[in-house]
Amino acid sequence: MSKTPAYDELCRRHQRLHRLAHLQSIASWDQSAFMPPKGNEARALALAEMGGLLHQQATDAALKGLLDSAEGESLDETQRANLREMRRAWRASNALPQSLVEAKSLAISHCEHAWRSQRPANDWAGYAENLREVLRLTREEARLLAEDSGLSKYDALMDQYEPGMRSTEVDRVFGDLRQWLPGLIQRVQERQRGEAVQVPEGPFATAAQRALGQDAMRLMGFDFEAGRLDESAHPFCGGVPEDVRMTTRYREDSFLPSLTGTIHETGHGRYEQNLPREWLGLPLARARSMGLHESQSLSFEMQLGSHPAFAGLLSPLIVKHLGEQPAFAPENINRLLTRVVPGHIRVDADEVSYPAHVILRYEIERALVEGEIEVDDIPALWDAKMMELLGIDTRGNYKDGPMQDVHWGAGLFGYFPCYTLGAMYAAQWFATMRREMPDLDQRIAAGELSPVFDWLNARIWSQGSRWETAELVQRASGEPGLNPAHFRAHLEGRYLG
Amino acid sequence: MSKTPAYDELCRRHQRLHRLAHLQSIASWDQSAFMPPKGNEARALALAEMGGLLHQQATDAALKGLLDSAEGESLDETQRANLREMRRAWRASNALPQSLVEAKSLAISHCEHAWRSQRPANDWAGYAENLREVLRLTREEARLLAEDSGLSKYDALMDQYEPGMRSTEVDRVFGDLRQWLPGLIQRVQERQRGEAVQVPEGPFATAAQRALGQDAMRLMGFDFEAGRLDESAHPFCGGVPEDVRMTTRYREDSFLPSLTGTIHETGHGRYEQNLPREWLGLPLARARSMGLHESQSLSFEMQLGSHPAFAGLLSPLIVKHLGEQPAFAPENINRLLTRVVPGHIRVDADEVSYPAHVILRYEIERALVEGEIEVDDIPALWDAKMMELLGIDTRGNYKDGPMQDVHWGAGLFGYFPCYTLGAMYAAQWFATMRREMPDLDQRIAAGELSPVFDWLNARIWSQGSRWETAELVQRASGEPGLNPAHFRAHLEGRYLG
Repeated sequence: MSKTPAYDELCRRHQRLHRLAHLQSIASWDQSAFMPPKGNEARALALAEMGGLLHQQATDAALKGLLDSAEGESLDETQRANLREMRRAWRASNALPQSLVEAKSLAISHCEHAWRSQRPANDWAGYAENLREVLRLTREEARLLAEDSGLSKYDALMDQYEPGMRSTEVDRVFGDLRQWLPGLIQRVQERQRGEAVQVPEGPFATAAQRALGQDAMRLMGFDFEAGRLDESAHPFCGGVPEDVRMTTRYREDSFLPSLTGTIHETGHGRYEQNLPREWLGLPLARARSMGLHESQSLSFEMQLGSHPAFAGLLSPLIVKHLGEQPAFAPENINRLLTRVVPGHIRVDADEVSYPAHVILRYEIERALVEGEIEVDDIPALWDAKMMELLGIDTRGNYKDGPMQDVHWGAGLFGYFPCYTLGAMYAAQWFATMRREMPDLDQRIAAGELSPVFDWLNARIWSQGSRWETAELVQRASGEPGLNPAHFRAHLEGRYLG
Repeated sequence: MSKTPAYDELCRRHQRLHRLAHLQSIASWDQSAFMPPKGNEARALALAEMGGLLHQQATDAALKGLLDSAEGESLDETQRANLREMRRAWRASNALPQSLVEAKSLAISHCEHAWRSQRPANDWAGYAENLREVLRLTREEARLLAEDSGLSKYDALMDQYEPGMRSTEVDRVFGDLRQWLPGLIQRVQERQRGEAVQVPEGPFATAAQRALGQDAMRLMGFDFEAGRLDESAHPFCGGVPEDVRMTTRYREDSFLPSLTGTIHETGHGRYEQNLPREWLGLPLARARSMGLHESQSLSFEMQLGSHPAFAGLLSPLIVKHLGEQPAFAPENINRLLTRVVPGHIRVDADEVSYPAHVILRYEIERALVEGEIEVDDIPALWDAKMMELLGIDTRGNYKDGPMQDVHWGAGLFGYFPCYTLGAMYAAQWFATMRREMPDLDQRIAAGELSPVFDWLNARIWSQGSRWETAELVQRASGEPGLNPAHFRAHLEGRYLG
């Protein structure tokens, strides 16, 4: 007879949820990657049915008692961490009434669907009307989550994606960033003005790009026995840890966006592929947070992928699949990958100007959630901040302004900071690696990437959700939490060094 | 307030099962078509979890009462047919104790897994040992199903695949077939001995074969907006009616096996794609039986695909994708498609000798289930029947004898007759079409295939499980049930005419 019956029962229930969610993940991946159009309605109904079933199991009345009983059982440190994460999952599933979840799901679905035609039509008024309803329900959600957790409303939302992170901390690191980033962007642009960059000449056949992307994934250590690369309109990394399904998209006139996107998703993919096997199916084995996830994709895409020596590894692969071109010389590839050009669109932004897009969104969404501003205030704030941070005039251009992302329309308030927190964490990981392995850059230049992967695996991937983020960061880097100085040093070193 | 509350509740429950089974179907398809090897264990666990969940819902204690209450409600003819099929599904799920289902599942899994290495090693003794255990559990299953239904043991098993079909009927039609088939095979072979047949010269690139297969599917009316063609080791037609997932496999040295296999699966696929939309999710909307399903794939592959005029439609597609060759002339393609060569292997058999393989298996499996013979009696019976029916000496060659199929090892006793019943039904459909449309063959020769598809859609596909098989056959063909004379006339007309 087990001495931890409540804990064991909780594990069994989570394993069951994990197995059913496996089918949901694969069917969702298929929906984006392979499903023909007429399958959509039946698939949506099937996924909604499963969503309801999983929610029902996650809010089962017996769970509260099991969680309380398990607290009193004799658990080791790992089990206790697992129990902490089980409770977190339980709170997230139970804090909101089903009626609110359903109302928000409907409002989101309506807003997203309309956005697809409103964005090309630059129809801000139409979008704003739907967004007001999503915001109204999100505020209600934030109020309930805040009551439940004792956090501020915005923090309660952000905690769903980045547990433990608070807006006071984000204010601190983004406030610092805000001081020096616009100046840095200008100085980098001035410096790059004199550089000669050769543009590769297309077209680049999709099949050749696909083979190139797969070779890059192999270079980055992706395990093709436990995952695949396919195509979808919006690239993502899905599937399950045992079988990671990455997607990308190809444009025949340009191969770098797909290649760097693939390297980015490979970072997500390897995190998932290397989550701790012995706990798979339990909350303990999940990735720590969205910010930490992004720190892996950016470790791959930016820290490694735009490393001055990495172009030397990429260049032979590009030549192998796309043929010889002067533009494929390593120095030129590196210049293409590190070109800083402020623009309207966040997802197209370079490493240096990207954080400006995130700061802008963070400032606006925090104020929206806290009720300090309304949807109608967004355009004027957007224009002012784009001018201030990137020197770009966005007036009247809603489609490439606040309508470019659908995060808010999808009710994802509190998510944007994760992108730049991830970039900062990634810089902190590489600063630690260099401290511990002074010859790291020479090894990368020699094509030896395993020290990087081994470090990330030992310190991040294999740790799952065993530690709260602050402790994970302490254990990984030896510093008490996020230190944004590493990100600044990284950007200044790479772009002005 | 509904006047049929029990019936409505049953419909809601079946819709829910249909939606969850959708995810199971897509994940199973993915498992065969795309899943990388290391995903297998997690996928097996996920599918088993879903299997358990679906079984639990299908055996829910409330169902019996709902079925009984619904009988007393005021239902129209269609609803009553739906209720009949709901009860059939309920009986099938409830007739067997969970312990037997699990024991059989384990024995099958063990037997199938060992078979993969036993077959190439010609290890009959090893296979027989595992097969004895599967047979023991199958006999127990048959005994319980027979008690529940009042049928004989073999009939109770066959009824799962071909509802309403009885071994007295199979004995009658196979008994007749057995009289004239061996003679026919000999006469056809003598006649074809003088024919010059040119063998196409490979290799045939996989990509070209894939495009050819897709063009053939378009010719056969497959809706690519509601389905796909992919690859797997063992071709099948899976997915869901709203999104049919067909697979095939390619050999670069030979393109006809894949092409005819694709045409075969397209028949299954179009049946599924055209099941009655208004009842989808309800048992009423399911395909009538496995024999009826096979009658569709064989209507496509044999009745149409080996029709003397069809090679004239296929030939230009072959030339388009594989280039010009003398062997691609319509007359030669037709000769290749209608070549009669008795052999050891059922799945490679031509249209004429195929039924001999089925008769042999039916006679042996019926006697096994009824306890008249044992596993150890199989080889001698196999050898005798192969000699008698096809004139082939199979002594000592177990791997191309009783070990060539894994149906019995997989516990599928009672399934084999469906293949030849399907061939006979297909002949009956085409005899009816020709009676109703005397110019059918000229229209087929002119590339006009819609009369065939429209007829099959109106009489079979759109009818789902609305009628019991005998009534469906009566309504479709005007004859009271299966008339094997059409199959004989078809073979004699095509091969000796």
